[in-house]
Amino acid sequence: MRVLGVDPGLTRCGLGVVEGGPGTLAMVAVGVVRTPGGSDTGERLAYLQDQLDTWLDRFEPDAIALERVYATDHVPTVMTTAQASAIALLAGARRGLPVVMHTPTEVKAAVTGSGRADKAQVTAMVTRILKLEVAPRPADAADALALAICHHWRGGGDQRLALAAASERARLKAASGGAVVPR
Amino acid sequence: MRVLGVDPGLTRCGLGVVEGGPGTLAMVAVGVVRTPGGSDTGERLAYLQDQLDTWLDRFEPDAIALERVYATDHVPTVMTTAQASAIALLAGARRGLPVVMHTPTEVKAAVTGSGRADKAQVTAMVTRILKLEVAPRPADAADALALAICHHWRGGGDQRLALAAASERARLKAASGGAVVPR
Repeated sequence: MRVLGVDPGLTRCGLGVVEGGPGTLAMVAVGVVRTPGGSDTGERLAYLQDQLDTWLDRFEPDAIALERVYATDHVPTVMTTAQASAIALLAGARRGLPVVMHTPTEVKAAVTGSGRADKAQVTAMVTRILKLEVAPRPADAADALALAICHHWRGGGDQRLALAAASERARLKAASGGAVVPR
Repeated sequence: MRVLGVDPGLTRCGLGVVEGGPGTLAMVAVGVVRTPGGSDTGERLAYLQDQLDTWLDRFEPDAIALERVYATDHVPTVMTTAQASAIALLAGARRGLPVVMHTPTEVKAAVTGSGRADKAQVTAMVTRILKLEVAPRPADAADALALAICHHWRGGGDQRLALAAASERARLKAASGGAVVPR
């Protein structure tokens, strides 16, 4: 499964694609879309939408993991963050892709073990989990990867069962000397 | 000039088109787009976008007047209101239409003379200004018309000059017995 993590924002929107198989996660791409603060909000949203479309066309994720933002989070940016989130939600609806929201606490807890981890800890764990040679920068890029990792690990019961089954199949296949084990 | 007023919301989004000439304003259309609360936010945004596109194609406004929402306005709905606003902002950017924001206080002051008018007063004045036989319902529909009226009346200096000039041309034309007066 391939997940696009989106850390929504209009000044900086973090994007990170993580591919996962049983027991392994690997980074496919990471980046940040920036739009200039002085320009028209509609133009900024259109630019973000164009960039997101390019990523979705190129990396073809199976799901989008989006940070859930609360109205009381950070008043000066909450409106533009909500508007940037709308672009991701709309993209998911238009393409038939599931968009799943994860709270910052859930993401931090998933990658570091603590819901109160700071940005440096999140970046360090993302770097380690994905076995990256260089830590992703800026924090929005690391956060987008953390969202994608969180989505892989928090997968619902069905996904966990599917992973357990895949893992078991791999084990049986190895034990049987490579013969195909029916699903 | 024709203005589409948008009272943004995901549960109810008010839309109202007002046409204006020198000294006269007339309603072209009014309505409310409703999306069910239980459904996926992305699907609701996509539906709102489709409906807004239909209105823009059909009524071809010259500008969009959008209510400016503040992060501290009404916490339970501020996120979805911001997301609904994003759809209008994006539509303006994609179509090259100006999207101008007006605060609720500006709109109330423009149509009733008081920035603290209640919904009933706004609806009553909208009904009177547009010479409607029936008051527009629900309040979101009346608010959308009020936004469009406000936009007409708050037009920048250029627009006021253009209106004054048009009015003067009409007066001269009438005085000259119908001969065309050069612009």
